[in-house]
Amino acid sequence: MNIDGQPFRTVWAQDDYVQIIDQRELPFHCVTEDLKTVDQVARAISDMHVRGAGCIGATAGYGMWIATQEAARSSDPTNRLNDLATQLLETRPTAVNLRWAVERQLESLRSLSPETWAEHALELANTIADEDAAACAQIGQHGLPLIREIAEQKEGPVNVLTHCNAGWLAFVDHGSATAPIYAAHDAGIPVHVWVDETRPRNQGARLTAWELKQHGVPHTLIVDNAGGHLMQRGQVDLVITGTDRTTRSGDVANKIGTYLKALAARDNDVPFYVALPSSTFDWKLADGFAIPIEERSPSEVTSISGLRDKETTETSIHLTPQECMAANPAFDVTPKHLVTGLITERGICNASEDAIAQLYPDLA
Amino acid sequence: MNIDGQPFRTVWAQDDYVQIIDQRELPFHCVTEDLKTVDQVARAISDMHVRGAGCIGATAGYGMWIATQEAARSSDPTNRLNDLATQLLETRPTAVNLRWAVERQLESLRSLSPETWAEHALELANTIADEDAAACAQIGQHGLPLIREIAEQKEGPVNVLTHCNAGWLAFVDHGSATAPIYAAHDAGIPVHVWVDETRPRNQGARLTAWELKQHGVPHTLIVDNAGGHLMQRGQVDLVITGTDRTTRSGDVANKIGTYLKALAARDNDVPFYVALPSSTFDWKLADGFAIPIEERSPSEVTSISGLRDKETTETSIHLTPQECMAANPAFDVTPKHLVTGLITERGICNASEDAIAQLYPDLA
Repeated sequence: MNIDGQPFRTVWAQDDYVQIIDQRELPFHCVTEDLKTVDQVARAISDMHVRGAGCIGATAGYGMWIATQEAARSSDPTNRLNDLATQLLETRPTAVNLRWAVERQLESLRSLSPETWAEHALELANTIADEDAAACAQIGQHGLPLIREIAEQKEGPVNVLTHCNAGWLAFVDHGSATAPIYAAHDAGIPVHVWVDETRPRNQGARLTAWELKQHGVPHTLIVDNAGGHLMQRGQVDLVITGTDRTTRSGDVANKIGTYLKALAARDNDVPFYVALPSSTFDWKLADGFAIPIEERSPSEVTSISGLRDKETTETSIHLTPQECMAANPAFDVTPKHLVTGLITERGICNASEDAIAQLYPDLA
Repeated sequence: MNIDGQPFRTVWAQDDYVQIIDQRELPFHCVTEDLKTVDQVARAISDMHVRGAGCIGATAGYGMWIATQEAARSSDPTNRLNDLATQLLETRPTAVNLRWAVERQLESLRSLSPETWAEHALELANTIADEDAAACAQIGQHGLPLIREIAEQKEGPVNVLTHCNAGWLAFVDHGSATAPIYAAHDAGIPVHVWVDETRPRNQGARLTAWELKQHGVPHTLIVDNAGGHLMQRGQVDLVITGTDRTTRSGDVANKIGTYLKALAARDNDVPFYVALPSSTFDWKLADGFAIPIEERSPSEVTSISGLRDKETTETSIHLTPQECMAANPAFDVTPKHLVTGLITERGICNASEDAIAQLYPDLA
C-alpha cells in the first residue's frame, strides 16, 4: 500500500540484498533498512524489525536468498546453507510461516548446483512474497462486497472497527483485516475505520493508525474501552479483525480484547468478521480453548514508550505504583458462535467445521 | 482506609483549615495539601486535587467552613458568605454532591449570627463527611456476604474484578465498589482484585492499584482488554464497579468500558454488581440511554504521562502518529438486564424500577 503516495511492500529485493521497513521505528519514523547478511536478516526477525506471520515468512524467504549467496562463497556450500537455514529457523521458533518459507527454499534448491542457487532462490522468494500479497488481495476482493452492501444502504461512510494490527505491515501487502477496507477505499466507497489502540502494545495506535493515514483512509483512534459504546449508539457498521490462529471448527484466537468486541457486536447486531489467509488455520485443532495463551511480560502493562515533545527517540515511562503486580495474557479466544463469517482468500464462509471444510477440501 | 499502615480519609479538618490528599500526585507521591482559603479550596476542586462525587462533596462542605471564617472577618458577612458559596459552586458546575453540600451549609447557617457560623459549619462539614463514610461502610457490609458466600464455596482467594476507581479516594472513606472488598479483607476473607487499568486516564492503574496496595489487599493490574479472557478461564468470581449515575430503572452509566465487562460477565455467568450510595441515583431519569455522554479531549487518548526512571516529576509522551484523530467518550451505559444487583447503603436490590423504589420509597 502507499506511504506518502508511493506504493510499498514490507519487504523486497534491492540489487543483491533485502530491504525492509523497520517497524520498530513506527509510527514516529518510517525507516527502511538494508539486510545484506543472514546475521542481519536473523536479527531483523528475532528483534522484531519485522513482525506479522506473512511478513516474517516473506522476510525469511528473502533471507534464504542471502543465505545462498553466502553459502556459494564457502568451501562446503550445502552444509553452509543448512547452517544458515537453521540460524533463520531459530529466530522465531513458533512462527509457522517462517519454517514453511525456509523449508520451501531448501526443498527447491536441493537438486540444483550452488552457482545457480541465488537466481532460483530470488525467484522463489519473490514468489512467496507475491503469493502472500495475492492472498491478501483476494481477501480484500471477497470482503469488499460486505462494505459495498452497507454503503448502498446508508448515508455517509461505512464505519468499520478493527482491533490490533492485521494490516499490510503484518503481511507483504494489503493485510488481512485491512484488505477489504483498502479495497473499498480504492474502489471509491466511503469508509471510516475505528482503530482500537490495542493495549498493552498499542499496535492499533502505532501501526494501524499509521498505515491507514499513509494510504489516506479516514480513521479515528479510540481506547479499547470505547467500541461497545460506539456500537450501542449505532456508530459501527461492521467489525473486521485478523487472527493469530483459527481452529478448523472456527474458534478464533486473536489479540487480547477481541472477544469483548465480538460480544458487543452480537449484543448490538453488528456483523463480526475475521479475515485470514488459509495459512492461519490450525487444521489439527477443533477447540479454540485448547490453544495455549502466551503470558507476556508485566512490564508491557506497567510501562509504555512514546515520543516527548521535540524529541526524536522514544522515552519509556512507568504508569503504576512501584512494584505493582500485573498480568499480561496476549491473546483471547472468540468462540465460533460469535463470528459472523471468515473472510479468506477463497471466499467467505461461516465459522463452522463444515463450512470451512467445504471451502478447503484439500486442506481440512 | 490505610496508607502505609495509618488510617486516612481523603479530606479532613486540621486546626482551623482543611487538609486533603492531593490526588494528582498519585500513585508516584502521596502528598497532603493544606487548604487555608476558599481560593485554595476552589482550586483544589476545579483542578482535581480531589475528585469523585463523595470526596468533592465533603471537600465543599469543609470549604464552606473556611468560607464562614473569611466571611466573619468581612464588613458584610452574609453577602460575603454567599459570594464564597458561589465561588465554590462554580468549580465543578455538574457535581451534584458539591451543590448539595454548599446549599446544605447555607441553609443551616441562615438563622445563625456570623460569630457562631464557623463552629456550626465545622460540625456540619464533619457530619457530611461522616455520612459519606458511613454510607460507604454500609455498602461494604451489605456487599460483604456476596464475597463471603463465594469464599465458602471455593479454595483460594475470591477474585473480584473492578473497573476505574470507585475506591475510597473517590469518597471520604471505604469507597463504593471497593467497600465490600475492604470489608472482606478486614474480616479475614481471602480476596484478590483484578484491577482494570481503565484507559484513557488510567484511574485503575494509578488510583485503585495504589489504594489497594496501601491497605494491603492483594491485586493484579490488567489491561482493559484482558477481563473477558480471565472470565472465560474461570479466574473472575465477581465483578463490582461503581457508577457515575444510575437511573431509577437501574441503567448504569459508568466509566467507558464498563459495558464490555458486563457483557463478558453475562456470557460467563459471573455476577456483575454495581455499588452506589443513594445520592448517585438519578430519580428523574428512567432510560439510561438518555444520559448525555461527555466527550473528552482526544489528547487523553493520544498522549499519556508517567514517571521516567530516576525522575520524580511526570513526563508526558505521544503515543500515535502525528495529528492522529481520536475520539474519547468518557462513559458508557450498562443496561439494567446485564446488572445482577445494586449494592447500596440500604441493602442489595435488583436493577429494576420496582426493586429500587421498594428500597427507596422516600426518594423514588
